[in-house]
Amino acid sequence: MLKAIQILGSSSGFVSHHWKRHTSAGFSFVAISIKPLSSTSPSRSCLRGVATTSTSSSFLPMSSSTSRTHCSSVFPSSVRSESNPGGTSSSSSSVAVQSAGNARKINFCQWCGGATKHEIPDGEEKIRAICTVCGKIAYQNPKMVVGCLIEHDNKVLLCKRKIQPSYDLWTLPAGYMEIGESAAEGAIRETWEEANAEVEVISPFAQLDIPLIGQTYIIFLAKLKKPNFSPGPESSECQLFALDDIPINSLAFSSMLVSLNLYVEDVKAGRFKFHYGTINKRRKPVFESLN
Amino acid sequence: MLKAIQILGSSSGFVSHHWKRHTSAGFSFVAISIKPLSSTSPSRSCLRGVATTSTSSSFLPMSSSTSRTHCSSVFPSSVRSESNPGGTSSSSSSVAVQSAGNARKINFCQWCGGATKHEIPDGEEKIRAICTVCGKIAYQNPKMVVGCLIEHDNKVLLCKRKIQPSYDLWTLPAGYMEIGESAAEGAIRETWEEANAEVEVISPFAQLDIPLIGQTYIIFLAKLKKPNFSPGPESSECQLFALDDIPINSLAFSSMLVSLNLYVEDVKAGRFKFHYGTINKRRKPVFESLN
Repeated sequence: MLKAIQILGSSSGFVSHHWKRHTSAGFSFVAISIKPLSSTSPSRSCLRGVATTSTSSSFLPMSSSTSRTHCSSVFPSSVRSESNPGGTSSSSSSVAVQSAGNARKINFCQWCGGATKHEIPDGEEKIRAICTVCGKIAYQNPKMVVGCLIEHDNKVLLCKRKIQPSYDLWTLPAGYMEIGESAAEGAIRETWEEANAEVEVISPFAQLDIPLIGQTYIIFLAKLKKPNFSPGPESSECQLFALDDIPINSLAFSSMLVSLNLYVEDVKAGRFKFHYGTINKRRKPVFESLN
Repeated sequence: MLKAIQILGSSSGFVSHHWKRHTSAGFSFVAISIKPLSSTSPSRSCLRGVATTSTSSSFLPMSSSTSRTHCSSVFPSSVRSESNPGGTSSSSSSVAVQSAGNARKINFCQWCGGATKHEIPDGEEKIRAICTVCGKIAYQNPKMVVGCLIEHDNKVLLCKRKIQPSYDLWTLPAGYMEIGESAAEGAIRETWEEANAEVEVISPFAQLDIPLIGQTYIIFLAKLKKPNFSPGPESSECQLFALDDIPINSLAFSSMLVSLNLYVEDVKAGRFKFHYGTINKRRKPVFESLN
C-alpha cells in the first residue's frame, strides 16, 4: 500500500506538517518539507500515530505529488535544525567547521597554501574552490551522521545534550561518521561515547537526507548488550523513555523526531521497515527575520 | 533465516571470497573482506548464485563469526579498488582530491591560510589538522557515492568508463553525492550525466561501506522513464546486460560487483531486500609488493 505524508515545520521549530510517504513490503519512502510558519503550539498526536493517506505520487522532487495529509501543530518549537549533532568533542563543536559546504568560504588551498578562485571547473556545474597555484579543487560533499535507536524493555534510550548546538535537548546517540569505520561501527562508537552503552546493531532503520545542510542521517535499530548506561562527556543525562513519554517538545533535531515517529509507527504496525527519505528544509525568507 | 557469506579478494583483484551475511524479512547484512592472494583466475559462478550457509554469527566486527562459506576464484583481477568513481569531470579526476582523508596531507588552513599542526584535539581520539593561527580543525569524513541499478526488460544498464580510474571497465552509473541534493536525486543526476538516461527510483537497494577508503555506496533500484540512453561525457558505452551476460571480468569497482551479486540473488529469490554491509579492504602487506 502506498501512503503519503509530508511534514512542514520551520528550521527552528516545527509548527505544521505534510508528509509524503510510499511504503512497500520491506521499506518506506519519506519526504518531509520544513518551512517557517507563525504558530508554534506543540502537540504529541503525531508522534503517537502520524496520519496517513493513500497516494500514487512519487516521493522524489522530480515527480509530482498527488495527495497530502495535513496535521497541524505537531512539532515543538524547541526542535532545532541539524548541525554538528555530536560525535566529536565540545571543542570541535565550538569551532563549528562541520558545516555544510560553501565553496566561497574556502580561501586557501589546504595542500599548498595558495589562494583559491571560485569558479565552475570545466565539465562541471557547481562553483568550486580551485587553487590558483597548484590547480587542485577542494570538493565538499555531504557528511553522514550515524546513530542508534536503542530498544530496551519497550523503551528507547535518549541522551540530553551537554554541548551546543541544541544544548539541553534530547537526541538519539549519534554523530559524524569517521573515515576508517563503517556506519554501524560509527553508530556503536557514538553510543558508547555519548551514553557509555555497549550496543549491538539489529538492523538498518532509516536513511534521512537533509540536502540544504549537506547531512545524511543513518540510523540503526540496536539493543543493549548489558543493561548499563550513563552520560558520556557530551551528555548531561541518559534515560530510557516509554514511547508515550518521549520528550518530543525537547528533541534536539528534526531528524530525531522523524526517526522516532517512524519507529513508533513501526511498533504499532508490529513490523519494522527500512525507511529512506529526505527532510527538505527551506531557508527562512528575509521578511521572516524582520518579525 | 540467517546466512553467512564473506568475500576475500584483493584491492586490485578479487581472487577468493568469504561472505558473512545475515538476512531477515526485509533486509540483509553483508560483510565482505578483501585481502590480496596470489591466484587471479576469474569465474562467473558466484555472480550467478553466491553460495550461502546458515550461521548465528553477527555481521559486525565487534562480534565473532561462527560460519563461513568459501568460493574461490570468483572475482576477476580487473575489478579495481574504489576511488573517484565518477560524478565529477575528468578534470577533477585528474587532480584526484576526492581521496580518503589523511589529516597529515592537510598542510594549510583553508579558511585563513595558516599552517596546520597535526595533533589529537582535546576530547578526541584521532589526529586532525588544526590551524596554528585561527585554531579551526579541518575534519575529514567519509564520502557518499550514489548510483542506480537500472532494471529494463530483465536486463541491467551498465556504463563503460571513459575516465580514470578503472578506464574501460564497466560500472553502474554512480558518483559522489553533492551538497544540496538527496542521495536519490544524486543517483538520478549521475545516471543522467553518465548514461543520458532519465530514471525513476524504485527503492533503496544497498548501502555498502568501505571503511579503509572512507566511502559509502548508496545504490537504488531504478527504472527507465523512457527507453533511451547513450554514453555521457564520462562513458564510452552504455549497454543493457542480461544477468548471465554481466561482464564481471571487467567491472570497475568491487562495490559494483557486490551490488550486482546481491541483485542477482534477489532476482532468483523473487524478492528484493535492502542490503547493508561493509567491504573491508586490507592494505597490501609490504612483502606482497615485492612479488
